[in-house]
Amino acid sequence: MRDRKPDNRKRDFDNAEPRENLIEGRNAMTEALKSGRTIDKVFVADGDTDRSLLRLAEQAKKAGAVVVSVDRRKLDAMSATGAHQGIMASVAAHEYSSVEDILARAEGRGEAPLIVICDELSDPHNLGAILRTAECAGAHGVIIPKRRSVGLTAVVSKTSAGALEYMPVARVNNITATINDLKQKGVWVFGTAADGTTKLYDADLKGPAAIVIGNEGEGMSRLVAESCDFKVSIPMRGEISSLNASAAAAILLYEAVRQRL
Amino acid sequence: MRDRKPDNRKRDFDNAEPRENLIEGRNAMTEALKSGRTIDKVFVADGDTDRSLLRLAEQAKKAGAVVVSVDRRKLDAMSATGAHQGIMASVAAHEYSSVEDILARAEGRGEAPLIVICDELSDPHNLGAILRTAECAGAHGVIIPKRRSVGLTAVVSKTSAGALEYMPVARVNNITATINDLKQKGVWVFGTAADGTTKLYDADLKGPAAIVIGNEGEGMSRLVAESCDFKVSIPMRGEISSLNASAAAAILLYEAVRQRL
Repeated sequence: MRDRKPDNRKRDFDNAEPRENLIEGRNAMTEALKSGRTIDKVFVADGDTDRSLLRLAEQAKKAGAVVVSVDRRKLDAMSATGAHQGIMASVAAHEYSSVEDILARAEGRGEAPLIVICDELSDPHNLGAILRTAECAGAHGVIIPKRRSVGLTAVVSKTSAGALEYMPVARVNNITATINDLKQKGVWVFGTAADGTTKLYDADLKGPAAIVIGNEGEGMSRLVAESCDFKVSIPMRGEISSLNASAAAAILLYEAVRQRL
Repeated sequence: MRDRKPDNRKRDFDNAEPRENLIEGRNAMTEALKSGRTIDKVFVADGDTDRSLLRLAEQAKKAGAVVVSVDRRKLDAMSATGAHQGIMASVAAHEYSSVEDILARAEGRGEAPLIVICDELSDPHNLGAILRTAECAGAHGVIIPKRRSVGLTAVVSKTSAGALEYMPVARVNNITATINDLKQKGVWVFGTAADGTTKLYDADLKGPAAIVIGNEGEGMSRLVAESCDFKVSIPMRGEISSLNASAAAAILLYEAVRQRL
């Protein structure tokens, strides 16, 4: 749903995250990669291009992490030790799953898939709240994009109130491509938009369904909106024009629960 | 809904609130009372019982504020100036309404009342989120207790995303008494509880309805639970046993919207 907040898609690092989930420096990065910890994002100082740094970034990328270039001053501000050596990384609070795992989970239960796709959420409280509600609603998994999205941070884990332990979260390179894959596999994709043409209570959520929740500031991106089978509008009875992302998710998920009873 | 968090009912002051909404000292209190600003809570130092202090506290109470005794060290910690003179107060981000106003608002629109009662919520983000969803769902007002509840703080206002400007919030001395009043006026009161005997989709929310959302830690208090006409359970399909308070509110409010279409 659309909010009236400024665009915050460019924010790659959430300052609200506690520092203890940040790895600083080359040795710590090497050890984290060796031990197989799930690394969410690697922050490399702009212009720092010596070979050992690039090798570490490359290894992390292979292991599934997102690598972003940031201004050295940003690293300085993020660093607790002041000795980041041009590289820092955020560790995920839980390992990621895959879209295939999520579909297999639904199949294993003999249920039509119920999936939430979060399109570029930036607020860890929203992602955590959505994980919690999705778990309560019996959804089979949540999909987030690798870039321009909060990952499975400590705040997400805490806000999920334990749901992160049960709810598979898949991280994909391209949400539009994932939506197209899901459609080919028979999943109907329901976007949410204030100008949606399908009324919430006319949407058939009994079959295989994926619900797309847009970014807090901008709603769904244009490409994602265009690739949805339906754009659902939630009735608005008051003066303000938008629901919070996690409230919108709760309303759609429990409409699916109601229809599936 | 019940969470598994420690009891936090005793928390009278939310440290997450910005200090600029706090009034410090006797002169500031006198001026705030004169100007008619809505004061949420007055904090008076334990043992500080000189006459001018007691008179200020009495005046604030008459104006609708809650007066609490706190340890002087707590005031010291809250104070930005260090010159609180034994008294501080938090200013509300919006003035309060009354239950009568809320009922009159429904009548004026020719609609069956739809009211949310928040029973001792302590998290300003939850209250703000509930105000926002209630406004979107076309509810007529929100009721909170004077004590053991977050008031209309700056964080509540911000989280409500503008809804606080449109949604009347009444603050009452005793939630149980208010529930009994509402029942006498023909409003059906629906509590939410994991062990509720009415299934969500069997609850008839088309008529005059008040939805009670319990404290984040403990759910509804026993007296409040006993005074509800129905205790509604939201279907739980996963491993965790409770929804966030604002998600529960969103699900009930939009079930009312669906039934009232």
